[in-house]
Amino acid sequence: MTRSIVAALLLASATPALSQTVPPQVADLRDQALKDDYAWDIVEGLTTEVGQRMAGTEAEARAREWAVRKLTAMGFANVRIEPFDMPVWTRGHEAAEILGPYPQRLVITALGNSASTPPEGITGEVVGFNSEAEFEAAADSAVRGKIVFVSHAMPRTQDGSSYGYFGGPRRQGPTVASRKGALAIVVRSIGTDYHRNPHAGVQRFEDGVKPIPAGALSIPDAEQLQRILKRGKPVTMRLTLVSQVTQGKSGNVIAEVPGRDPKAPVILVGGHLDSWDLGTGAIDDASGVAITTAAAKRIMDAGRPLRTIRIVWFGAEEVGLFGGINYQKKHGTEPHYAIAESDFGADKIWKVDSKLGKAREAEAKALQLALSPLGIVPGSLEKADGSDIEPLLNAGLPGVALSQDGTHYFDIHHTPDDTLDKVDPESLRQNVAAWTTMLATLTGGIESEPKRHKRR
Amino acid sequence: MTRSIVAALLLASATPALSQTVPPQVADLRDQALKDDYAWDIVEGLTTEVGQRMAGTEAEARAREWAVRKLTAMGFANVRIEPFDMPVWTRGHEAAEILGPYPQRLVITALGNSASTPPEGITGEVVGFNSEAEFEAAADSAVRGKIVFVSHAMPRTQDGSSYGYFGGPRRQGPTVASRKGALAIVVRSIGTDYHRNPHAGVQRFEDGVKPIPAGALSIPDAEQLQRILKRGKPVTMRLTLVSQVTQGKSGNVIAEVPGRDPKAPVILVGGHLDSWDLGTGAIDDASGVAITTAAAKRIMDAGRPLRTIRIVWFGAEEVGLFGGINYQKKHGTEPHYAIAESDFGADKIWKVDSKLGKAREAEAKALQLALSPLGIVPGSLEKADGSDIEPLLNAGLPGVALSQDGTHYFDIHHTPDDTLDKVDPESLRQNVAAWTTMLATLTGGIESEPKRHKRR
Repeated sequence: MTRSIVAALLLASATPALSQTVPPQVADLRDQALKDDYAWDIVEGLTTEVGQRMAGTEAEARAREWAVRKLTAMGFANVRIEPFDMPVWTRGHEAAEILGPYPQRLVITALGNSASTPPEGITGEVVGFNSEAEFEAAADSAVRGKIVFVSHAMPRTQDGSSYGYFGGPRRQGPTVASRKGALAIVVRSIGTDYHRNPHAGVQRFEDGVKPIPAGALSIPDAEQLQRILKRGKPVTMRLTLVSQVTQGKSGNVIAEVPGRDPKAPVILVGGHLDSWDLGTGAIDDASGVAITTAAAKRIMDAGRPLRTIRIVWFGAEEVGLFGGINYQKKHGTEPHYAIAESDFGADKIWKVDSKLGKAREAEAKALQLALSPLGIVPGSLEKADGSDIEPLLNAGLPGVALSQDGTHYFDIHHTPDDTLDKVDPESLRQNVAAWTTMLATLTGGIESEPKRHKRR
Repeated sequence: MTRSIVAALLLASATPALSQTVPPQVADLRDQALKDDYAWDIVEGLTTEVGQRMAGTEAEARAREWAVRKLTAMGFANVRIEPFDMPVWTRGHEAAEILGPYPQRLVITALGNSASTPPEGITGEVVGFNSEAEFEAAADSAVRGKIVFVSHAMPRTQDGSSYGYFGGPRRQGPTVASRKGALAIVVRSIGTDYHRNPHAGVQRFEDGVKPIPAGALSIPDAEQLQRILKRGKPVTMRLTLVSQVTQGKSGNVIAEVPGRDPKAPVILVGGHLDSWDLGTGAIDDASGVAITTAAAKRIMDAGRPLRTIRIVWFGAEEVGLFGGINYQKKHGTEPHYAIAESDFGADKIWKVDSKLGKAREAEAKALQLALSPLGIVPGSLEKADGSDIEPLLNAGLPGVALSQDGTHYFDIHHTPDDTLDKVDPESLRQNVAAWTTMLATLTGGIESEPKRHKRR
């Protein structure tokens, strides 16, 4: 069944009521947003004029300055940076080399918070496992003093749910390896492509666990190592993963579309400003900040919403949700009418979930109805997600999740290949239309008035 | 029109005569070859157990040893290495960094025979051109002392013909840049993909021209640099392309299926053993040596051909056809019944050209007919090609060209992405079937006899 058939069946059966109609103002804003250029302008500008913006580095600081200039120029109010301190992990020279039996170099990158090897690297015998479960079941004696290699191919999923289970080797693998006495760990990249571009990503050694070097091989290199191991001869690897940790600064960049009722709870939308250091963070997550900001701008262009729309470009998401945690610390007790984050690429939105509460079910269904012409399936009324906003959602704030199609997301995710050319302008516009629809639906009506802010 | 329709129209009109029939021995060998495993075994083995095998290096020497072991184990006769000396260019540390106005790193690799920068790199202002023609028309004063950037997007073509014209910036660009007094040159990779993997490739400074550093940016990085230049501010780049030149050895590996008539001219088939250093040379050209060797092996398994089949795994093709030139020097005056090389990847063969001479037109048409069930279009009777065999073809030897579909070849060509996972086993088998058909057609009949060589 195609998505539209599924959507039609759902619409025809339970949610939402067909007797409802979409308010003309919402429908107009939605349809106009399909011609949006604001989002492309932000993605193109941020990725070209800043490029990579690793959390806590001077590049992320330049990105914050860029963001303040851009948001101010677009006419948003209350543009500000909320700074915070954080530990900053950065990579140095990286290499993996099979010394024997078949000498050759493999393409690798360190996982976040990997221990550093000496500049000349470390050398050890490789012991391979075909899944995280197989590795965890192994005797310590099989692993001690060796370089552990865990490989488990991740399948494609539209909703990205494979990332959880198949991400195990990256997330808990290093901690388990250290506990078992391994010298180091290398994993098959958590991804779905076949390019020589390894997938970076964060991992965190559990408390009390000694950090060891931890890296991800590109998928072709992981399969090469599997073939080499399969030949049954002892395999020796030299692994060089130099990195350093310093103290640094990050910050959330915040801007607002002031509502007519300054006392009404705000609607928070956003994405994260930082990126991994290998690509330019076009899909992760320049697109997310661009889509949500473009939608807010389109509401602002149309007039004054009842409720304030707050845009947050979170800092330091990739390396541990520092921005989200900082926002919660500063604003977690303020009332929020709804919170939503875009952080799953730039492919089309295919599903809307929400958790606005029983009392607001009619509003949630109105949102589903308004989104359905964009090919968006009505999903759950009892869940929402988003990395930076997770602490707020866990604390019970109402949320909306506009889910992007993730079928191809993990081809690119956290790799050098996360560059502007991977963003499809038409899909980006569909995203802007969906977020504009969401804001227009939840903001309590927009009153047009003589424009105070110049359009670009 | 699909390929098979085109083939049908051609068959129905002019070539070849429909009244002909394919000899049962040829048809049987062709159809059995569609289940071939010999070629995969060679591609998998060579790319896994040797990996990259840059011309003139110890890796290429290991590849020759591997080849001798493999060809001997497969039961071929007269397995030998014909060595030769050559200059060996190898790369060291490589980096490109925009220092201003938008600091960021770009992904680059040096072109073959690039001059070396100092280890700390060189720094210069970038001047950009949108095509080789635009660059060549520029005044020397616009270029002198600067880093030239030439970008011209190469389109996809089935026959690979775009590689000639759009490869200009790589081939003559460095020489032109040096003559104009440029500090260095960087080009958009000659390729058709969108990955952060630059395309290496050879260039040669013309006699009397001073070598300068010359590199290729990955295509996403080339487009990034174009966007940066378009903003109109002076762009400064630090370019590090360390390389060295030494004297080294290479060699052609030769093996034979002895014919019943040792005096009859041989049929030469082969590919090249060396690869660029960034990938494992799976499609360029482990596949070529594998396909042609598998086809010869299948003939040998069936019995004794009238004419000797000579397999050549040429050395040092990528960096200047050293193996082909050496073969011509040693064997160019020997009679050859036909020569053919596979060096365009592992996608399906879509067309057969040949140049066997007017007197052998019936044989050429019989070949077209025998190949047509594989979906292969009858092409010209007056041309053939192949890089290593070009000197022989130019000298007038009869040749056959089984042309692979090149639509996706330049996504991978000369990049780190040239790895085993890019080879489709079914397409590889179609190639083996075509080459087996060609050998069976031209070899003058195979007499089955008690097997002297064990099958694997």
